[in-house]
Amino acid sequence: MTLIERIRKGEIPDEVRKVASAEGLDIKDLTEKIRAGRAVIPRNRRHTSIEPLGIGEGLRTKINANIGSSEDRVDVGEELKKLSVAVDAGADTVMDLSTGGEIDLIRKEIIGASPVPVGTVPIYQAALEVTRQGRSFVDMDEEELFETIERHGEDGVDFITVHCGVTRASLERLRKEGRVLGIVSRGGALTAEWMEKTGKENPLYENFDRLLKIAKRFDMTLSLGDGLRPGCLADATDRCQIEELITLGELAKKALEEGVQVIVEGPGHLPITHIERNIRLQKDLCNGAPFYVLGPLVTDIAPGYDHITAAIGGALAGAYGADFLCYVTPTEHLGLPGVEDVREGVIASKIAAHVADIAKGIKGAMERDLAMARARKALDWDAQIRLSIDPERSRKIRERSLPSDAEVCTMCGSLCAIKISRSTL
Amino acid sequence: MTLIERIRKGEIPDEVRKVASAEGLDIKDLTEKIRAGRAVIPRNRRHTSIEPLGIGEGLRTKINANIGSSEDRVDVGEELKKLSVAVDAGADTVMDLSTGGEIDLIRKEIIGASPVPVGTVPIYQAALEVTRQGRSFVDMDEEELFETIERHGEDGVDFITVHCGVTRASLERLRKEGRVLGIVSRGGALTAEWMEKTGKENPLYENFDRLLKIAKRFDMTLSLGDGLRPGCLADATDRCQIEELITLGELAKKALEEGVQVIVEGPGHLPITHIERNIRLQKDLCNGAPFYVLGPLVTDIAPGYDHITAAIGGALAGAYGADFLCYVTPTEHLGLPGVEDVREGVIASKIAAHVADIAKGIKGAMERDLAMARARKALDWDAQIRLSIDPERSRKIRERSLPSDAEVCTMCGSLCAIKISRSTL
Repeated sequence: MTLIERIRKGEIPDEVRKVASAEGLDIKDLTEKIRAGRAVIPRNRRHTSIEPLGIGEGLRTKINANIGSSEDRVDVGEELKKLSVAVDAGADTVMDLSTGGEIDLIRKEIIGASPVPVGTVPIYQAALEVTRQGRSFVDMDEEELFETIERHGEDGVDFITVHCGVTRASLERLRKEGRVLGIVSRGGALTAEWMEKTGKENPLYENFDRLLKIAKRFDMTLSLGDGLRPGCLADATDRCQIEELITLGELAKKALEEGVQVIVEGPGHLPITHIERNIRLQKDLCNGAPFYVLGPLVTDIAPGYDHITAAIGGALAGAYGADFLCYVTPTEHLGLPGVEDVREGVIASKIAAHVADIAKGIKGAMERDLAMARARKALDWDAQIRLSIDPERSRKIRERSLPSDAEVCTMCGSLCAIKISRSTL
Repeated sequence: MTLIERIRKGEIPDEVRKVASAEGLDIKDLTEKIRAGRAVIPRNRRHTSIEPLGIGEGLRTKINANIGSSEDRVDVGEELKKLSVAVDAGADTVMDLSTGGEIDLIRKEIIGASPVPVGTVPIYQAALEVTRQGRSFVDMDEEELFETIERHGEDGVDFITVHCGVTRASLERLRKEGRVLGIVSRGGALTAEWMEKTGKENPLYENFDRLLKIAKRFDMTLSLGDGLRPGCLADATDRCQIEELITLGELAKKALEEGVQVIVEGPGHLPITHIERNIRLQKDLCNGAPFYVLGPLVTDIAPGYDHITAAIGGALAGAYGADFLCYVTPTEHLGLPGVEDVREGVIASKIAAHVADIAKGIKGAMERDLAMARARKALDWDAQIRLSIDPERSRKIRERSLPSDAEVCTMCGSLCAIKISRSTL
């Protein structure tokens, strides 16, 4: 039985208790949210080594770090290092997006080593295995795709991205739309091209029931991918994006009925003024299913700094109700992130999630800021460093230029406002 | 005559023509905005070497970089380096906040070398000169403060921060408020402490007319400082902050009547949910005067990353109508920023301003993103690098891991969505 099926039978699963306890929530409320599909605990029944983690309404905003090899860069050791750096910096989940080297092996290593839920995008591997055989990926057999998904389930993957909303109808709308940047999702592009060349419907849409069966077998959460997400501000919130979202909402409903947990993925590149309506619309159209956004990136012109553009968009998206933020690293749009990129990306995303949690009124969020404010008032530098989101970085910067008066810092010196007004205010 | 007085006489000053041309605005519209105090062109009549720069309603969002020495770090050469790095990275103005070494000399050097408007906070120097004489800064004579302000005007400073809203009334409200972090503005703390110890009213409030006379003499713009800005989320949008803002609105009106250009300064530390009302309230209470915000920082817990917390707050503040963003560097709350911090701070702030300009519909803003989107569609890497907010950084990251196929990048390789779907979409 899946987690939802157990809840439907009246059970209060241990996973739910643990998540409720970790988040300081009422167990019954959380149980109801999972039953209604407004929160999920993504955990493959074979992946019992991880702590249960909740994502959704009323819970702390979670963040994901994408790791994994590419055709140009394969180093299992480096990927494991990325995993540990990501988790240490605060990633709540990781996705192994490996597309280079022995993909099965890397995935197994990551699942084995990860203390947090692991996600994948099986179509990458399915397409690559076809091309490695010297065939074109458009010759991929539907069976090969489903077989890859099963393999991921067997290995213990907790959630998979499946681009079920790239349908003949949404591609027709894409064509009518006349987008600037077309499709920027890899899974979306592979699916669309396959459909174009074969003339068939998307098998993950057409045979969604088969997908649900596999998901049920492993109690794997489906993350319904937005293969038609906008890849630039000019394409934001257009008709084909919303067509796909409507379909994802329908599929989310169906999955829930079948007892499969679902997350819905969202943009992407959005002007800051589009964020609120994108979040509200997803909640309206997808029965309040957890919303997993990539960024959103609020400008296209900042490669090298897309962890910042994503932090701006992610903070705002979270404040409006997005539940799960996929990090973006400084190397986005330029190459495969390295270990240091992973760290920078996770921290920027953590900041956005925390800012959102303050807006959402999540228990404990504002208290951290209050503790920091009190440490500042007390000119207690040890506490300020300890309470920082990245204590090591705070310490390094402070130690780089130590003040002659240990109570203040090298910016204000004797003009320290807090010190000046301490006696009277 | 000041710029406003010239406009009132029916003149269309050359500065206004230049700014209108640079921003692609109608000259008469801009003239009316300056007359109404909704836009300013901060330029000391002695500082004719700079290009006129407009700040306010309907104009591109501007950003300021704070530079200057501190008691613990004095190096004129380094400050000039910070100036050139800030300007190269896109700072629209700089403020010399020097508090160490020969302050007059550093200021003169910066004003001489700067191609952009220069601001200062004269009370820092006034207080320090008193303490350098072995006296306590609370023994500062009102004359000494006004004399310092005049000296800055004579040197050609284009805009000065004056904390005129720290009044006996606002301090009384501060006391009733019971803030967590009291006063975090240096100018605010100095003023409050001076008032506390002398029992007098703030001379810059009580003798605002005298301040206006000095400002008129040099056609220096007044930036009405928010000495009582919140220094932590818990203190945001409280009664003493708003009391001060009301006073600043009254003073802004008076200054405008006297033909002196005015900017109003704002927070500071704010939860993301407070940003909209802070911006709207300032516009309501201050006759639409340009709003100059420091950040806002949307969490207290990210020292080392406050350029990111400020970019989140600044982008949103700008989108709601803030006109002028003061940058924040990664070293904020920890020490005096170095040259590299200045660069990081300016770029993060530029990103925020650009994101805001897209929201505001500023001419040319969205076009930059569109050009980038087209370069991505064309897999034109030279153009992508050229169109980046920081081309050098983009190039470095790209060259750090060159792909085997020059058309794509090392993240996606043969799975490049744009390349895959190029033939059909």
